[in-house]
Amino acid sequence: MIVVLKQNAPQEKQKQLVSWLEKMGLGVHVFTGEFQTVVGLIGDTSHVDAELISSMEIVQSVQRISDGFKCCSRRFHPDDSRIEAGGAAIGAGAFGIIAGPCSVESEEQIVAIAQKVKQAGATMLRGGAFKPRTSPYDFQGLRADGLKLLRIARRETGLPIVTELMSEHDLDLFEDVDLIQVGARNMQNYELLKALGKTQKPILLKRGLCSTLRELLLSAEYIMAGGNENVILCERGIRTYSDYTRNTLDLSAIPVLKELSHLPVIVDPSHATGHSRLVPSMALAAAAAGCDGLIIEVHNDPEHALCDGAQSIRPEEFAPLVKKVSAVRAALMEN
Amino acid sequence: MIVVLKQNAPQEKQKQLVSWLEKMGLGVHVFTGEFQTVVGLIGDTSHVDAELISSMEIVQSVQRISDGFKCCSRRFHPDDSRIEAGGAAIGAGAFGIIAGPCSVESEEQIVAIAQKVKQAGATMLRGGAFKPRTSPYDFQGLRADGLKLLRIARRETGLPIVTELMSEHDLDLFEDVDLIQVGARNMQNYELLKALGKTQKPILLKRGLCSTLRELLLSAEYIMAGGNENVILCERGIRTYSDYTRNTLDLSAIPVLKELSHLPVIVDPSHATGHSRLVPSMALAAAAAGCDGLIIEVHNDPEHALCDGAQSIRPEEFAPLVKKVSAVRAALMEN
Amino acid sequence: MIVVLKQNAPQEKQKQLVSWLEKMGLGVHVFTGEFQTVVGLIGDTSHVDAELISSMEIVQSVQRISDGFKCCSRRFHPDDSRIEAGGAAIGAGAFGIIAGPCSVESEEQIVAIAQKVKQAGATMLRGGAFKPRTSPYDFQGLRADGLKLLRIARRETGLPIVTELMSEHDLDLFEDVDLIQVGARNMQNYELLKALGKTQKPILLKRGLCSTLRELLLSAEYIMAGGNENVILCERGIRTYSDYTRNTLDLSAIPVLKELSHLPVIVDPSHATGHSRLVPSMALAAAAAGCDGLIIEVHNDPEHALCDGAQSIRPEEFAPLVKKVSAVRAALMEN
Amino acid sequence: MIVVLKQNAPQEKQKQLVSWLEKMGLGVHVFTGEFQTVVGLIGDTSHVDAELISSMEIVQSVQRISDGFKCCSRRFHPDDSRIEAGGAAIGAGAFGIIAGPCSVESEEQIVAIAQKVKQAGATMLRGGAFKPRTSPYDFQGLRADGLKLLRIARRETGLPIVTELMSEHDLDLFEDVDLIQVGARNMQNYELLKALGKTQKPILLKRGLCSTLRELLLSAEYIMAGGNENVILCERGIRTYSDYTRNTLDLSAIPVLKELSHLPVIVDPSHATGHSRLVPSMALAAAAAGCDGLIIEVHNDPEHALCDGAQSIRPEEFAPLVKKVSAVRAALMEN
Repeated sequence: MIVVLKQNAPQEKQKQLVSWLEKMGLGVHVFTGEFQTVVGLIGDTSHVDAELISSMEIVQSVQRISDGFKCCSRRFHPDDSRIEAGGAAIGAGAFGIIAGPCSVESEEQIVAIAQKVKQAGATMLRGGAFKPRTSPYDFQGLRADGLKLLRIARRETGLPIVTELMSEHDLDLFEDVDLIQVGARNMQNYELLKALGKTQKPILLKRGLCSTLRELLLSAEYIMAGGNENVILCERGIRTYSDYTRNTLDLSAIPVLKELSHLPVIVDPSHATGHSRLVPSMALAAAAAGCDGLIIEVHNDPEHALCDGAQSIRPEEFAPLVKKVSAVRAALMEN
Repeated sequence: MIVVLKQNAPQEKQKQLVSWLEKMGLGVHVFTGEFQTVVGLIGDTSHVDAELISSMEIVQSVQRISDGFKCCSRRFHPDDSRIEAGGAAIGAGAFGIIAGPCSVESEEQIVAIAQKVKQAGATMLRGGAFKPRTSPYDFQGLRADGLKLLRIARRETGLPIVTELMSEHDLDLFEDVDLIQVGARNMQNYELLKALGKTQKPILLKRGLCSTLRELLLSAEYIMAGGNENVILCERGIRTYSDYTRNTLDLSAIPVLKELSHLPVIVDPSHATGHSRLVPSMALAAAAAGCDGLIIEVHNDPEHALCDGAQSIRPEEFAPLVKKVSAVRAALMEN
Repeated sequence: MIVVLKQNAPQEKQKQLVSWLEKMGLGVHVFTGEFQTVVGLIGDTSHVDAELISSMEIVQSVQRISDGFKCCSRRFHPDDSRIEAGGAAIGAGAFGIIAGPCSVESEEQIVAIAQKVKQAGATMLRGGAFKPRTSPYDFQGLRADGLKLLRIARRETGLPIVTELMSEHDLDLFEDVDLIQVGARNMQNYELLKALGKTQKPILLKRGLCSTLRELLLSAEYIMAGGNENVILCERGIRTYSDYTRNTLDLSAIPVLKELSHLPVIVDPSHATGHSRLVPSMALAAAAAGCDGLIIEVHNDPEHALCDGAQSIRPEEFAPLVKKVSAVRAALMEN
Repeated sequence: MIVVLKQNAPQEKQKQLVSWLEKMGLGVHVFTGEFQTVVGLIGDTSHVDAELISSMEIVQSVQRISDGFKCCSRRFHPDDSRIEAGGAAIGAGAFGIIAGPCSVESEEQIVAIAQKVKQAGATMLRGGAFKPRTSPYDFQGLRADGLKLLRIARRETGLPIVTELMSEHDLDLFEDVDLIQVGARNMQNYELLKALGKTQKPILLKRGLCSTLRELLLSAEYIMAGGNENVILCERGIRTYSDYTRNTLDLSAIPVLKELSHLPVIVDPSHATGHSRLVPSMALAAAAAGCDGLIIEVHNDPEHALCDGAQSIRPEEFAPLVKKVSAVRAALMEN
């Protein structure tokens, strides 16, 4: 950690700062320039509150050299992690393909889609039961009933199920869910993250709508610091001024997250673009960029889907896409 | 609502769409151009799910003419609302000045600050007990103990208290809080909003880090649709690429929100800028732009504040700022 | 074009508007709702100034249905365009690989790099002679001397050359350049675009730092409206709040631009990410997403490059990357 | 300047770096931690190319402590600058009010508006002759004829004139213009900035659509480094995802720019918001935040303005706004 002092910071206050830092067990090096004095801290600074230091009157700025990540950091865990969820694996060479409708609508719908995506090569089934909607007047999901229908679809197909939890209050209902999704809007709902940290459930943590990668990793850290290391990260687009797409898919997140962390990284091209016709090219791009899996909205009747139909592809588009994804991955492994 | 159809949308599908829309009780006007067919919907479209329609295969795009706001809309409630909280009022001419430290740290600290901000003209006391922090390793607040200290400060000064609730799980602890804050990270924590909608507590709803104004109003709508009309909106800066400030304060939110809604709008210049030396000019700008109040971080010892000290001003800076804010408001009322 | 009128727009003014629009030869349909009146315009509205209409007192908003593109629009030119530049082709199946250093530094440097990238499979040589730098105190390029060195490298290797023009004032010097680059900062330098429209030189038009795709296409339109149809579009990342990368590469631009326009689309992963170690994965992702080419910074000595060394890869990294790109493209063609 | 080395950077390469830096005449301090080595540079680092250093293989990151500003920096020029243009002054206590139409349309129009804004208290007249428009098919301005009409309006009213230059090619035509505007799209048109640096004309430099404040100041530095110190900075909104306004006005730019630089800072609430009804509140907010002037679009017939009418206010709205601005400024000076 580097602390830059203000010009003309009084000597006495500088000494106080240095002695306070030394008491924390840090190595402290001061070097004094013509215009500026800089203090370098050596040692484990992960417990040092950078904001507290930057708040001090004599301090101009603070720069962390290390990043504050522990459990999720690749530095302390050099090998890729593989997360197992209901028999399916993601990470460390295992490529996960999660597919299914935005919302669970009926037994008939979810079972039919589950069968089709399984046949096409999906490894897990997604379906929203608790739905975060911007307007209170929009469809809010079948909630507990939706979870029941997902379990039926799992029984019929053997596919493990993935669905979103919106409040720690409902955690009991999710006992039986194979992979619990934390949505973009709740990425910094810390009470929810802490509650999930106390379970051993695999968690799919989606990047917030305008989160930095550091914030995403620190939200993973909330779960992992509680003792639950089963976290999968998901890039799903960030909000920008770009027109034509709902969000801007940030595929550079894949190599950056994999450099910083050992956790698996998957990509959601459906929510990222908001348009079904853009999903295949973005799914292929994500695979080529080295992600560990995809989560794709598939609906057998997108025109009548109760939400987000515009971004769902049909089973007959999904099957060739899975083939192409495999071909791209194979080409990269061979070359 | 305007629905633009794709070129070459089959006649039969067009008819299906029109008859489906008419069944919802809407007036439907179709006009057909050389390249494009456009369908206009007249009537109460607030219960129509625009995403559902835009998901249909023959639909190119959907534009809402009305905005989907009901309870919070000025159209249906032309007069400014005034929210009363613990004896203090905000809105409809009543200017609220909420001040206090980022975190409650000790009885001595919170009582001392409360006395000083009251003397300077504050109408309410703020102080964080439950603290949302980006890293799990940062100070998380005194939680229930912090609420007790706030109550002591209220008893000593008579100032109503404002503090953040992070989970509906803790709602019981907030029974006695005068104004409950929903923080930026929880603006779209819909389960929390719904729980607050079932109370009659005044709510201070902060704009999310990259929320549009429409999303902010729809989050207010979540609370109000549940039956709780006591909502105050708060602009606190949005995330952009701008350097030098933590966020970008969007003061145009004030006139826009007041045009769309009858709810009071206050501004938080402390979190918006992240730097105490920018707080006075942004507070004055907000007052000149017509806000209904301010929420300002004040700490008697910012250098040693346990969080966000960098953006706290001292009581001796706060008192002249309150005077200047009054002078600006008086000048505008007289001219 | 859809014109939404304000509530309570006076009848007389509405009639004036309608008759004014009809005089332009447009079909005008008015439909009147309970709250709102909407006017639909049918016919060629590309010459209608939407801003002029939206400026009228009785108008609330204007929405274009068609997009204002003519020359660059796929609607009027359904087949992919192929641009030929100095013997190399890009688009309509021809994949261009443009490689070379950020800046031309010396004859030795540019010739050596040109030979290496040619050997690895590059089809064109890039190198900056006129350099746009944020600070006036940074290296500004060798300018005319740099162009000479590029010509020498072309003579030695046969690779056509690509380099940036910053002002129409210097156009004469670029007579001999095979593909003229307009940089991100000059994407809306309309006087430059108009001057290029009067030539027949192939133009590589980079997306501006925060440009929408519509703005990029309208800038292409500036060149094409002048009579020069030889335009290649380039996605090179947009500015966001994302950390760890210099910009955010928006790969969804590829399918969207190719849907809207017949022009070739290439991608610059070097400027987009700012880090050489992220270049290969983003280049592969771009290829998988269907781009028509890549422009990649390659330097034989990135540590001592005079600018942007951090994002340059070495020839020994470039060669295997070209192979992998080919493998990905082959896999997609076969599947 | 702080240079952070990568973990495991070879000793030999570290020594090469240090000796290379020392040869530049800099004081070099190395301190070595358990995980990381950091090199601090003391002395005048303004001529050190940070990008060059960050490009070196052993370097992880570079942080500038000083900011690279010279001519525009308040550090070297502590007093506020006042710019004189055609008899009007802006800065160092002189408040400039620039008003007029977006485009010059006719002698009658520009003279009538000039007379009205002068009467209301404007100190300068603005009017676009060369117009940067996103589409080549939109009205491009009267160009040289527009400049003539501006001169007539100046002769009739005595108001100095402000108008935009889009290319150094046209500089001769602007000899007689009192204050030359560089528009947002050209803020990083460095050839234009350099050409203006060779004149002694007062320049109004608008912030680019997504420029940081550092970039704005470095663009000012381009002009000033050439010998022309007559630069006025202008905040005019940045592009974000915010709805309802065309751009997001960043008023914190005022105190930040005034802290970093001695140059005057004015604000354009018309382009920032895009809506005439938001202009008064944002103009008042800007005045309260401490700006040195305003540039406001005023049109006597906004409904028929040839461009940007939606954001123009009428003379009868402008006059009371000027009064209110004065009242706010007076209130702040007295308190």
